[in-house]
Amino acid sequence: MPTYRLIVEYDGSKFAGWQVQPKGRTVQGVLTRILRETTGHENLTLLGAGRTDAGVHALAQVASIRTPARLPVPKLLGVLAKALPPDLAVLEMTRVPDAFHPRHDAVRRSYRYQIARRRSAFGKRFTWWVPGRLDATAMQTAAVRFVGRHDFAAFARRDASRTRTIVVVEECRVTDLDEVVLMRIVASHFLWSQARRMVGALVAVGRGEAAPADVERWLTGAASPPALAAPAAGLFLEAVHYPGEAPDLPPLLPIGIPWRAGHRPQE
Amino acid sequence: MPTYRLIVEYDGSKFAGWQVQPKGRTVQGVLTRILRETTGHENLTLLGAGRTDAGVHALAQVASIRTPARLPVPKLLGVLAKALPPDLAVLEMTRVPDAFHPRHDAVRRSYRYQIARRRSAFGKRFTWWVPGRLDATAMQTAAVRFVGRHDFAAFARRDASRTRTIVVVEECRVTDLDEVVLMRIVASHFLWSQARRMVGALVAVGRGEAAPADVERWLTGAASPPALAAPAAGLFLEAVHYPGEAPDLPPLLPIGIPWRAGHRPQE
Repeated sequence: MPTYRLIVEYDGSKFAGWQVQPKGRTVQGVLTRILRETTGHENLTLLGAGRTDAGVHALAQVASIRTPARLPVPKLLGVLAKALPPDLAVLEMTRVPDAFHPRHDAVRRSYRYQIARRRSAFGKRFTWWVPGRLDATAMQTAAVRFVGRHDFAAFARRDASRTRTIVVVEECRVTDLDEVVLMRIVASHFLWSQARRMVGALVAVGRGEAAPADVERWLTGAASPPALAAPAAGLFLEAVHYPGEAPDLPPLLPIGIPWRAGHRPQE
Repeated sequence: MPTYRLIVEYDGSKFAGWQVQPKGRTVQGVLTRILRETTGHENLTLLGAGRTDAGVHALAQVASIRTPARLPVPKLLGVLAKALPPDLAVLEMTRVPDAFHPRHDAVRRSYRYQIARRRSAFGKRFTWWVPGRLDATAMQTAAVRFVGRHDFAAFARRDASRTRTIVVVEECRVTDLDEVVLMRIVASHFLWSQARRMVGALVAVGRGEAAPADVERWLTGAASPPALAAPAAGLFLEAVHYPGEAPDLPPLLPIGIPWRAGHRPQE
């Protein structure tokens, strides 16, 4: 069946996550319904590369459409721009080989996380507000210790999906922009809650409640990581990569919030 | 009476503008009520430097509080951070001479406007989506012709406030960031609807419906400017300046929307 690859952008604030559920407005649910309505193909199916949780945003989620007939891509993109709700956009649609599977074929995912050092009128949907002392240098020292091939079972919520808990973290970094602290985690795949638990652990380090050297102890099972999971609002799925593709990550600048360099709030 | 100067930030999406009205949720109304509740001073008064319209945002609106007794500033800021709704923040509060008047004393205001060339899931509240051809170079050529001392009566909605219609525009520029086109207008003061009418006129130039040279004809009264007013959602009050202050404008980068340089949508 003809298969298309989609780049999907969404503000996750008012979605109960990506995956279709019996109740609740989900990205997969809304997009499937509108694609079926606009194409007239009732048995069109939509798969995503990753299941983002409620409140998590996506700059470039990847999805596939399998449909019984070829789609008029440029025209359909124009129709979707009008038919989709304002918090959901299809940025690209490309015909791909029928065997394409957005989740199985992906080799790498990139997430960003946004922490706000000051309360902003624009921040509730897009940041975790962490007032007070936050040592970003210690966080960065801890972050690089996540890089490598490790068992992240201790950072995962137990679920039935039996995803392999060995994850290769290619990049984990903390960028201090004064009013905002940004994090980027690039890994082979992510376990359920892993990204938010990693951010929670890094914030514990930033607050002085844990030391950068604790990362090794958490990863080897010598100690349990902090149970703190960072709120969904600060998390963005940035990109999903496939074999042979050059990484094309957006600049690590704040999204959704005004930001002034050099304006460091008092701690 | 003790007088304080406030820097106020708000996401204007769910406010019926700055100024108190008989009906509707306004920034001045919400902030006055919460300041009176948290300080216990029922006759505290709050004035703003500019009356932003419904849907217009502010990065740094300036306001004054006049109150019968001195305020415990650091403590009050902490209380406000918890008491204010998420779309409203007080960034600074400083004691100033009792004669301070935020509107009369201001010598310069800066507005930014955000146009999106592509539909974004994050864009509805913070941009005007202008699909199709938009020649930002022509817009910039037109924009600089607004600079100087001109009568902007033709760009103003007529109101009863009898504001002087001679305005000194210090800066008017257009920055093309591919997916996003940003504008900044710095002027002595702004007439009602002036900023949005100026943006509307520049977009008419960008679409080829008017020429950069038309700006002189609009300003001299030889022709009427386009009636198009840009939507409120894209407009941000960036700063208000007072005598002796160095201009401190935030970087002209997109707010509220992700943005990738070099990703220019097809026209």
